[in-house]
Amino acid sequence: MLKVYLSGEIHTNWRDDIIKKCREENLEIEFSSPTTNHELSDDIGVQILGKEDDKFWHDNKGGKINAIRTRSFIEKSDIVVVRFGEKYKQWNAAFDAGYASALNKSLIIIHNDEHQHALKEVDAAAFAVTKNVDEVVDILKYTIKGEI
Amino acid sequence: MLKVYLSGEIHTNWRDDIIKKCREENLEIEFSSPTTNHELSDDIGVQILGKEDDKFWHDNKGGKINAIRTRSFIEKSDIVVVRFGEKYKQWNAAFDAGYASALNKSLIIIHNDEHQHALKEVDAAAFAVTKNVDEVVDILKYTIKGEI
Amino acid sequence: MLKVYLSGEIHTNWRDDIIKKCREENLEIEFSSPTTNHELSDDIGVQILGKEDDKFWHDNKGGKINAIRTRSFIEKSDIVVVRFGEKYKQWNAAFDAGYASALNKSLIIIHNDEHQHALKEVDAAAFAVTKNVDEVVDILKYTIKGEI
Amino acid sequence: MLKVYLSGEIHTNWRDDIIKKCREENLEIEFSSPTTNHELSDDIGVQILGKEDDKFWHDNKGGKINAIRTRSFIEKSDIVVVRFGEKYKQWNAAFDAGYASALNKSLIIIHNDEHQHALKEVDAAAFAVTKNVDEVVDILKYTIKGEI
Amino acid sequence: MLKVYLSGEIHTNWRDDIIKKCREENLEIEFSSPTTNHELSDDIGVQILGKEDDKFWHDNKGGKINAIRTRSFIEKSDIVVVRFGEKYKQWNAAFDAGYASALNKSLIIIHNDEHQHALKEVDAAAFAVTKNVDEVVDILKYTIKGEI
Amino acid sequence: MLKVYLSGEIHTNWRDDIIKKCREENLEIEFSSPTTNHELSDDIGVQILGKEDDKFWHDNKGGKINAIRTRSFIEKSDIVVVRFGEKYKQWNAAFDAGYASALNKSLIIIHNDEHQHALKEVDAAAFAVTKNVDEVVDILKYTIKGEI
Amino acid sequence: MLKVYLSGEIHTNWRDDIIKKCREENLEIEFSSPTTNHELSDDIGVQILGKEDDKFWHDNKGGKINAIRTRSFIEKSDIVVVRFGEKYKQWNAAFDAGYASALNKSLIIIHNDEHQHALKEVDAAAFAVTKNVDEVVDILKYTIKGEI
Amino acid sequence: MLKVYLSGEIHTNWRDDIIKKCREENLEIEFSSPTTNHELSDDIGVQILGKEDDKFWHDNKGGKINAIRTRSFIEKSDIVVVRFGEKYKQWNAAFDAGYASALNKSLIIIHNDEHQHALKEVDAAAFAVTKNVDEVVDILKYTIKGEI
Repeated sequence: MLKVYLSGEIHTNWRDDIIKKCREENLEIEFSSPTTNHELSDDIGVQILGKEDDKFWHDNKGGKINAIRTRSFIEKSDIVVVRFGEKYKQWNAAFDAGYASALNKSLIIIHNDEHQHALKEVDAAAFAVTKNVDEVVDILKYTIKGEI
Repeated sequence: MLKVYLSGEIHTNWRDDIIKKCREENLEIEFSSPTTNHELSDDIGVQILGKEDDKFWHDNKGGKINAIRTRSFIEKSDIVVVRFGEKYKQWNAAFDAGYASALNKSLIIIHNDEHQHALKEVDAAAFAVTKNVDEVVDILKYTIKGEI
Repeated sequence: MLKVYLSGEIHTNWRDDIIKKCREENLEIEFSSPTTNHELSDDIGVQILGKEDDKFWHDNKGGKINAIRTRSFIEKSDIVVVRFGEKYKQWNAAFDAGYASALNKSLIIIHNDEHQHALKEVDAAAFAVTKNVDEVVDILKYTIKGEI
Repeated sequence: MLKVYLSGEIHTNWRDDIIKKCREENLEIEFSSPTTNHELSDDIGVQILGKEDDKFWHDNKGGKINAIRTRSFIEKSDIVVVRFGEKYKQWNAAFDAGYASALNKSLIIIHNDEHQHALKEVDAAAFAVTKNVDEVVDILKYTIKGEI
Repeated sequence: MLKVYLSGEIHTNWRDDIIKKCREENLEIEFSSPTTNHELSDDIGVQILGKEDDKFWHDNKGGKINAIRTRSFIEKSDIVVVRFGEKYKQWNAAFDAGYASALNKSLIIIHNDEHQHALKEVDAAAFAVTKNVDEVVDILKYTIKGEI
Repeated sequence: MLKVYLSGEIHTNWRDDIIKKCREENLEIEFSSPTTNHELSDDIGVQILGKEDDKFWHDNKGGKINAIRTRSFIEKSDIVVVRFGEKYKQWNAAFDAGYASALNKSLIIIHNDEHQHALKEVDAAAFAVTKNVDEVVDILKYTIKGEI
Repeated sequence: MLKVYLSGEIHTNWRDDIIKKCREENLEIEFSSPTTNHELSDDIGVQILGKEDDKFWHDNKGGKINAIRTRSFIEKSDIVVVRFGEKYKQWNAAFDAGYASALNKSLIIIHNDEHQHALKEVDAAAFAVTKNVDEVVDILKYTIKGEI
Repeated sequence: MLKVYLSGEIHTNWRDDIIKKCREENLEIEFSSPTTNHELSDDIGVQILGKEDDKFWHDNKGGKINAIRTRSFIEKSDIVVVRFGEKYKQWNAAFDAGYASALNKSLIIIHNDEHQHALKEVDAAAFAVTKNVDEVVDILKYTIKGEI
């Protein structure tokens, strides 16, 4: 069974879309992803481990707990899909792409045309640069079934 | 001898600063870095391998040639310093940070306060988050000489 | 359970032969293989990701999507069987053999006498050089059951 | 210092060309390559280890001794350049490309237009697909000096 | 399914606590741990392999048999939790933390405030430094379910 | 579930003994081993791949086919048990011990007192040196259940 | 040239002793070690990166900067010597021993008899357990020169 | 420069032979080998670390100290040559061969005809099976210079 990690933008429901469409195609895939609850993922460090006055340590505690999940799942995956959205810096998405690439995972990127130039180094490391979830689903289907 | 790769922002001369100050301290370090000629690094693919009409392939050819340099030098390094500047998306900087982290390199980040929250996942993977090149030089000096 | 990847020539049904005969012997093997639909595997890049005027990029897009499948399955396998047929250059078959060998997979080669000299470096990396699928099935049977 | 292995076609003097031009550019590169004496590389097994009646073992002994050299040098290299010539099967070239790719070396391919389609899987794994040695020299120069 | 190894202090029932609470939260986790029978783990070497007069060899035989278990389970795990108790030297706990860290496992430490300074190097390698099992359970729940 | 490979001497039924006793203890272990049919394992190369006049190639073909099995199973195992018997050179047993040790498997050796000095380097790499199968079963039981 | 990292206790001058005696024996060894200035190594984080009110973050910043040095040097070394002194918890020494052991470095331990039982797991991972620096120097001399 | 480890039989001067002949051919090779002083290598453990009554621990201490040298040098080498002599069990030679093979070193074996069958598994892992040091020197010369 293929293992696919869905990294990147967490403000639209693109992950559910991919998962639903893969189910409809009966593709045997074990999906994983970061926490998509933005607020919780921001505050998880202090919520579990106690309040910090300094914003840096507030974020540091959270970033590390999120990393447990992110690293474990990227390391277990065969394919890592990273979606870059329209807004925000999204440096964690690019970080995940670099992390996955160094671990020799097959990288699939989703972004719109506007970001093409800024993402050229990330795209250059990818096995496919797609424009939407349908193209990703097609690739996953082809990878598993050898048909489209 | 320690090997240090200087990744990230290429519009100020922070690399020269670090290298000069480390020389003044007589630190035995072999530095490497990406091409800092922005225009050349954008067009290197088509300059060497021939013109492309499509901007995507123009960038893809260049991104891959740049990757030869970037990957070779990150893999040979002990420490990777990544500076995030004030402008641009800088996804390649975050990609390099992820790549270096997965290869178990010691990551040192430089950024100003403004980017603190957006860089929290990258910072969480770092061994030191610095505000300027002087702090980086101090860390390199301490790492090599055990003094400051 | 042993995992076996069947690489190489896709114009005869040798894969079905091996799989069928292993089933008849009740060998617990999980087989995988590249897409054997030649035309689809040639055009998969542009079919999913959009038309290219330049044949090189047409093929590049396809080659990378095929690589997702090929790499994932070779990396998961214990044994890689590569069949060289009578026709075509089959450089992808030799590439897969090299890829598998560097990953320390047990390599089994199938080819007829005519190609013996040209394949000497590939054969030298193999654990068995066979003439037909029956010999491969015998090896798989022996590897699993210790009998023949 | 960069280490570059020059694999593939051994019937023209393209290696000397690259090495000479890199010297003229003062590029610090340690080059290595397979034996380019075709006849010797064919017979080295029996010359050293004794005669074989069977052509398969004649070639097998030689292929293995050649592999000592090939493997040691590919493993030590940062960049592997593979040239596909006009003639012969050249499966060993494709094997080396696959071997280098699995070891995460930066792969540069040289071939003419005629072989483009047949080499699409190999090209898809490459960081640059070039048409001649001058393009390779440009890439090596850019990789080391960041200029062209 | 996540695999979690519970290393360190064996004189209180903190492992049972974590396991019970994770079960109540329906978290799919495969837990493993060292032998928690202190006396048996001290004497296991001589009990199985025969008496030793010299205390060093008595302990060496036991330490090695315990290492079979410890190493196998740490290597299979995604997350390693290490609890430092109030008493004893607990060098094996710190050894396990270092071992897990070098294998790139996500390290979670439990200790009380008193040991904070002495454990600073171990804490610096951790993804979370917790004060009690409840915080560990929260992190495991968040890692698996993305909620708290 | 623990995976245990049983290497070495194939002229007594010590493997069946270990497997039977572990079953009686309800230990969840997946055992594997080389072919224990001595004659078949000697001739398997020529039986499958065709007759050789030269004894060296007769053995070489067989040795390589046996290696497919041996390597695959050692690489999948957590613990490798190697029994040295009273007779024969048993260099393959020592080879397997070295192979397993370099792959960081937990090595358990079985031999009688007579071979103690000759096996000192192999014993020095072992986690336990035992005198009989009962000691091995005790270690496996302790490793899995933490009791004896 | 052999590379040896000297970890552990920093309150006596045992490192200088080893280095001096190895020089007298003309042993070609490249030694490295952690900062042995205790106070500086405690405060290095806040000295370089700025003051922290919370002792945990004071130590965390320092621990991470020290880790850059420690990790880089352990990873480059062939042999890691760890000395456990009479006082303090020395959990960082045990952490380094575990880290080195997982990276397959040859571990040599120095401790006095008093700590024998508490260090049994660490000793069990060692290639030699010594009582003083003279024994370490003898081992290094023997390893390099094959004489004593 | 190639690194070659010379393992195995220590009762004849075959190592000096190889080294001398390679010097005469001006081959740039860094040779290493185990201690060839048989008596010293047997007793080194107790000589340095103190007397043992039990022969097993006498040998165990020595075996481990010898392993520091053996492992360090095998891991640094590109090629491992193992000579099997006429006498003794030589299980350490076969152990080294297995160790080197798992680390993907190029293995060259030297033995006379008498041992051919008993060494078939070791030979099957080798890149060359030679009858004397002259053949080894020829292979090293060919590997470095591409001529003979």
